[in-house]
Amino acid sequence: MTDRLPLDRLDAVADLVLPEVDETSAEAARARQLQLTKPPGSLGRLEDLAVFLAGWQQRERPVIANAQALVFAGNHGVCAQGVNPFPQEVTAQMVANFQAGGAAINQLCALAGAALSVVPLELERPTRDFTEGPAMDEAETLAAMQEGAASVDPEADVLILGEMGIGNSTVAAALAHAVFGGAAADWVGRGTGSDTPAIAHKAEVVARGVARHGSLSPMMQLAALGGREQAAICGAVLAARLARIPVLLDGFICTASVAPLHGARPALLEHCLIGHASAEPGHQGMTEAMGKRPLLYLGMALGEGSGAALALGVLRGALACHNGMATFAEAGVSDG
Amino acid sequence: MTDRLPLDRLDAVADLVLPEVDETSAEAARARQLQLTKPPGSLGRLEDLAVFLAGWQQRERPVIANAQALVFAGNHGVCAQGVNPFPQEVTAQMVANFQAGGAAINQLCALAGAALSVVPLELERPTRDFTEGPAMDEAETLAAMQEGAASVDPEADVLILGEMGIGNSTVAAALAHAVFGGAAADWVGRGTGSDTPAIAHKAEVVARGVARHGSLSPMMQLAALGGREQAAICGAVLAARLARIPVLLDGFICTASVAPLHGARPALLEHCLIGHASAEPGHQGMTEAMGKRPLLYLGMALGEGSGAALALGVLRGALACHNGMATFAEAGVSDG
Repeated sequence: MTDRLPLDRLDAVADLVLPEVDETSAEAARARQLQLTKPPGSLGRLEDLAVFLAGWQQRERPVIANAQALVFAGNHGVCAQGVNPFPQEVTAQMVANFQAGGAAINQLCALAGAALSVVPLELERPTRDFTEGPAMDEAETLAAMQEGAASVDPEADVLILGEMGIGNSTVAAALAHAVFGGAAADWVGRGTGSDTPAIAHKAEVVARGVARHGSLSPMMQLAALGGREQAAICGAVLAARLARIPVLLDGFICTASVAPLHGARPALLEHCLIGHASAEPGHQGMTEAMGKRPLLYLGMALGEGSGAALALGVLRGALACHNGMATFAEAGVSDG
Repeated sequence: MTDRLPLDRLDAVADLVLPEVDETSAEAARARQLQLTKPPGSLGRLEDLAVFLAGWQQRERPVIANAQALVFAGNHGVCAQGVNPFPQEVTAQMVANFQAGGAAINQLCALAGAALSVVPLELERPTRDFTEGPAMDEAETLAAMQEGAASVDPEADVLILGEMGIGNSTVAAALAHAVFGGAAADWVGRGTGSDTPAIAHKAEVVARGVARHGSLSPMMQLAALGGREQAAICGAVLAARLARIPVLLDGFICTASVAPLHGARPALLEHCLIGHASAEPGHQGMTEAMGKRPLLYLGMALGEGSGAALALGVLRGALACHNGMATFAEAGVSDG
């Protein structure tokens, strides 16, 4: 369990003292890449990923020996607005499914070699309906962030983050709209199965929420619009940063969850990668606003951390090449 | 070892009797996907891949228990035109590196759980310079195709194909230009490290080759412009099809290698996936012409089968979910 986050109020994220990427290790990794038996740059993003992991793990040859996956679950008052075709009980049913090993994230973590923990957050006590008032107060939000932070294994060498919560694609759209602007409809998509009229209704609900809370600071928007699982993801991201653990975010909802951190201080997300590009249309605008290109483009839109877990295989591929390939000198290959 | 291909001349590929996808198994897999604990379609291409594998393996729950990777290597007379900054000896040096386990493809096959074999094809006897005459005659081409076919393990449940050959990005560009048209420059890129003037020279060499041989049938273009590793890849693709083994093609050169099969009869490639989108600019036009969307977009351009080997992890993810997830009924989750 990591230390408590040194945060007594939400806007204090701006004052957190952050570990930075270790440029010496990154440069050593870059130099190693140039010696490996391949044309320079030919492994594309695999090379960048090896250098990224080297910089955060502070070693020329980074490893993934202890990958942790956390799925946070919460319930949302905004479901009272009829934004989701599934009943809210499905959140707890899916948590039970995670615990029994039957969900997609269980299979993908087992395949990728990641240790999965599911963290339900007061499912019997949904947040308040953000169209009628703030979903959470500052203390509730900080408590959920601390629970997220406490869930991070300080010995992990990479952290996968995911979420589950009926109604939380509406929450995600609201956070993205509040932080990045545009029109409500830019950030709203099908979620778990809305049809076209339901999507228009979701956009209208999002617009009302942001009209009410959009003038707050980004971290106070997290409280006013967010759910507990969004706050827990922010807490886990910060705890990982303080422990120099690189993070693989999942898709639409997970990325939107950290939008308030980006709004408060973009450097808070320097240790984060985005595992996959969601089929939700709003995801692309978010990733572009954050300047982060997702690793996988497979049309997935499930959440649970599923895209991030699959992307762990890409990180493993990057390190397999970085650590396992022969150099030109070792292999006796002419380097042109 | 698979049976010999029933081919006595190149253009007879049009007459091959082909196994088709089994729609009954595919439909059973589609029905299973709808029962799994997720919104329909939310696993995106993972769902399509499970259905694709079910159709070719003829079972509702396909497996990957015996993944084979083949890397074919050849040398090319067109190197006399100065199209590559590396000396031709590097082909044999890299084959030795593959055999010693030091290349990227070794690491990626080990990670993905694929059995790798490297097949050098008369490296000491390069094909002829295609700007001066046909690179190979029909008998040489058929022999290389038969060697490719004979390398396929008939018990494999998926086949990864890759290649190595100094100069073969020029060969690939010529095959693509001959089969798909356009301008020579549309298909020519950096390869293993050409700079801008060298790229212009490559395009001019490709244009001369296609001016000489472009009026031939697609399979005779394979002989006139191709190398032995391109022909071997075609042979392996046909042998896999006859054994109902789905194929993961690699990037630019591997895709160009099968362009003559596509030109002769597009249905010959129905069992083939493209593992990754190459950073070579010509690859996108090829995949669009073939109507196939690559699985990974990671800016790789190495060859060796590296992108296909990494994409095997995506196929494994698809099957892990398809075979391992609980249904709504099993998990007691409401399905909306």
